[in-house]
Amino acid sequence: MAEADKGAAVLSQDSRRRQTSWSTAEAIKGYIRDHGLTSGEPLPTETELCEVLGVSRSSVREAIRTLASLDIVQVRHGYGTYVGGLSLAPLVSGLVFRGSLNQDGTFGTLREVLQVRIALDLGVADELAAHYRGTTNSALRALVTQMRAHSRAGESFAAQDGEFHRQLLAPLDNTLVRQLVAAFWEVHTNVVPMLGIPRAADIDSTVEAHDEMLDALEAGDAEAYQQAVLRHYAPLRNAIDQALANG
Amino acid sequence: MAEADKGAAVLSQDSRRRQTSWSTAEAIKGYIRDHGLTSGEPLPTETELCEVLGVSRSSVREAIRTLASLDIVQVRHGYGTYVGGLSLAPLVSGLVFRGSLNQDGTFGTLREVLQVRIALDLGVADELAAHYRGTTNSALRALVTQMRAHSRAGESFAAQDGEFHRQLLAPLDNTLVRQLVAAFWEVHTNVVPMLGIPRAADIDSTVEAHDEMLDALEAGDAEAYQQAVLRHYAPLRNAIDQALANG
Repeated sequence: MAEADKGAAVLSQDSRRRQTSWSTAEAIKGYIRDHGLTSGEPLPTETELCEVLGVSRSSVREAIRTLASLDIVQVRHGYGTYVGGLSLAPLVSGLVFRGSLNQDGTFGTLREVLQVRIALDLGVADELAAHYRGTTNSALRALVTQMRAHSRAGESFAAQDGEFHRQLLAPLDNTLVRQLVAAFWEVHTNVVPMLGIPRAADIDSTVEAHDEMLDALEAGDAEAYQQAVLRHYAPLRNAIDQALANG
Repeated sequence: MAEADKGAAVLSQDSRRRQTSWSTAEAIKGYIRDHGLTSGEPLPTETELCEVLGVSRSSVREAIRTLASLDIVQVRHGYGTYVGGLSLAPLVSGLVFRGSLNQDGTFGTLREVLQVRIALDLGVADELAAHYRGTTNSALRALVTQMRAHSRAGESFAAQDGEFHRQLLAPLDNTLVRQLVAAFWEVHTNVVPMLGIPRAADIDSTVEAHDEMLDALEAGDAEAYQQAVLRHYAPLRNAIDQALANG
């Protein structure tokens, strides 16, 4: 590639030597941006990237691995490298790990995650109330019915709970908020079993709070929704406070 | 056929290696957890990790690089590998990049980041009001005075703004919220110049809103604080809406 050779030649020996895998990662990000590539679109081959960016194959490989761990690129083995999902997966992974460390023998991380979840849920009240006002939502009600059955049988209802929160926020025009809520739900759900928190005695009221959240939203009442959100989290909050007091 | 066979062989070797590096990263995380290591504490040497985990040196190296990009470990060249800060740096990096892509020609990511910042700021109102009630905060007031001078001179006041928000939330018992607020502030501050959003005509009211936020907190009035938070973000919100309308 004559063009690429020219580009590579412009880079001095010195700046080439200084190319770390970090700056190669930045260069690949620049390539994606400059070429207007979007999630799922293919990047040039490793060989082409070496030529275009004027760096060694090992630098490109290392940079690709770094970007893959950040979900900025996705390596499909045997096919090539594509622009990644730019998701919050790295955030979830880091936070679940941090939560699992439980360094100070407390339930600190879980309590923090809970507070973030509450803030995000409260923060979208107006938008959700505007969307749901005057609607009926049988799919969401059915999930609550399933949660109730599981809870009364002393079983976990995490799957239905996750689906409820995902569906409830689906109409939001804000992908980032939806991703963050899903990410913190996942952190939360992964960390709780690690800490061995006992099943809250009043967990049934969490189930009922889902119905109350829906009631409030269908009535277009953002404030009532916020109150239901707080009731929804109360049993787990109490369980954590209890665990902290006993710890 | 020979070419395809070669490809298949490379593929399986490659996916084996990837599998190993991923599970080696999990194994290193397990080591940190099981040994109760905390941020800044040293990990065993590369050689020791190979022995302890029973994997190759290249797997350990690759896993260390992946964990370093997630801030789970930190490599200090010439010294060794340490447990990382477990910060939200990977989140910031990913979001700034996503914001810079601006794929659909809109200011969508910035508007989303703004909504998350607002939700988090509103979500900590009660805790902040309880903390600041009856206090006076000359350091925070001094930052507002500096912001006002910069704003009137038509200059940016990002440094003082960042410091104000950092200091304001410093008393919070929630590290995660503080880190998230700082992370989204950073995304926001990095994305705005990339999008070439014109300076808001009413940016002075953002400066004054900082004073109003402090007034409300010192009065212990969480609701007045929330109103001031909304006024604080209004000029930028308007600028984004304007840019979206013009786009």
